[in-house]
Amino acid sequence: MLSKAVSKYINSLQIKKYRNLHQTFVVEGAKSVRELLASDLEIEKLFITEDFLEKHTGLLRKGLEYELVTENQLVQAGTYESNNAGLAIARMKRLPKLAIKPTDLVIALDDIRDPGNLGTIIRIADWYGINKIICSETCADFYNPKVIASTMGSFTRVAAYYVNLPDFLASLQPEFKIYGAAMEGENIHKLNLKPEGVLIMGNEANGLRPETRKYLTSLIKIPAFGKAESLNVATATAILVDNFFRQE
Amino acid sequence: MLSKAVSKYINSLQIKKYRNLHQTFVVEGAKSVRELLASDLEIEKLFITEDFLEKHTGLLRKGLEYELVTENQLVQAGTYESNNAGLAIARMKRLPKLAIKPTDLVIALDDIRDPGNLGTIIRIADWYGINKIICSETCADFYNPKVIASTMGSFTRVAAYYVNLPDFLASLQPEFKIYGAAMEGENIHKLNLKPEGVLIMGNEANGLRPETRKYLTSLIKIPAFGKAESLNVATATAILVDNFFRQE
Repeated sequence: MLSKAVSKYINSLQIKKYRNLHQTFVVEGAKSVRELLASDLEIEKLFITEDFLEKHTGLLRKGLEYELVTENQLVQAGTYESNNAGLAIARMKRLPKLAIKPTDLVIALDDIRDPGNLGTIIRIADWYGINKIICSETCADFYNPKVIASTMGSFTRVAAYYVNLPDFLASLQPEFKIYGAAMEGENIHKLNLKPEGVLIMGNEANGLRPETRKYLTSLIKIPAFGKAESLNVATATAILVDNFFRQE
Repeated sequence: MLSKAVSKYINSLQIKKYRNLHQTFVVEGAKSVRELLASDLEIEKLFITEDFLEKHTGLLRKGLEYELVTENQLVQAGTYESNNAGLAIARMKRLPKLAIKPTDLVIALDDIRDPGNLGTIIRIADWYGINKIICSETCADFYNPKVIASTMGSFTRVAAYYVNLPDFLASLQPEFKIYGAAMEGENIHKLNLKPEGVLIMGNEANGLRPETRKYLTSLIKIPAFGKAESLNVATATAILVDNFFRQE
């Protein structure tokens, strides 16, 4: 049963202010709840259907309390249009201090506003084994339910650090390569990229900000063979990151 | 002014049955309406704001009638949450008979249900100069407003052919290469791909159907370096197509 108070609490977590206040966030749907259960994230509350319980008893950590609910109750409480699995309230993890090495590839996002784009980029990062994303403070919030949903479970493995991006870039040692994606960049098919450095992706409509651009060591682009004016920023991130990993 | 009858007509075009009946579809928003105006598609009705008119007078074809409307009216009539530009009713184009060459790269979609995925794939195709997509009959409808929106104007340059996909594949001459994307395929980073043949992408949840699989000449995959279980199908299409074009 979802009490009125709990429903209200879950609802409030759609808003960043309340997520930060409580230091918790909502996880919905079979795939995300499964990944949450298999992760080291702390779970404050767990609501699952009997069907989910039967299929995934093995995933329930020892001593973890849960309440059985119906599909209808899950849909009413959460943001999904359908959910026959579960909903959890999870605790935000305290991130270790941000530290990156010049021999890692890190993705930095300069003002990526769309939660779906951020979530998809986190999933792409996870596919390529990148476990840190640097976000400008104006990016969508990592714990936004739409971000969590579009990561398809990768929110358990990838951490997002929100920073003043120009200051962060200024603080990097000169041995860091800093790549920015822009139409006037060098064709990535002609470059011999290694998965090292910082790859910065710019805002959906406006691209990289001038204050970010000035720290770049290379401008790169995906060659166009047709007439589309642009690619979606998550699509572009995927193609670029794949090119970084295509070496050898 | 949008009359009640016109509003009702526009509304009915959210449904495939009525789109097919009238052989028309709705185009919304600045980018899509601009691309429509610059295309050879026939426009049945055009509603634009004064602001859009001022900025794009040059795009209005000679003799094309339009009505001035407000932002509010556009939002009420269409499916967008905000639209300060325009909305058009366009005529579906009669496609020439489907003909493909073994020296072209063609994308085929096996049961891609999500309109956003289909639209994004059309945009990716357009970026790489691929102007034909083959869709199984169960794919999302090309003229669905969400598909049109996510193509970001590429609906004017890329044609979708709906076919019985296994029959279509069976009809191809033996010189066609037929690639399917699947987890157990060959690593694309190790292959020397050329942009030739048919690349088939499978359903969001279930991948390629067995009846489609049996026509493949190669199974290929994107190598994983991390722990995400999968990539979004549009993301995967982008990475694969880029690898086909990465030759030389």
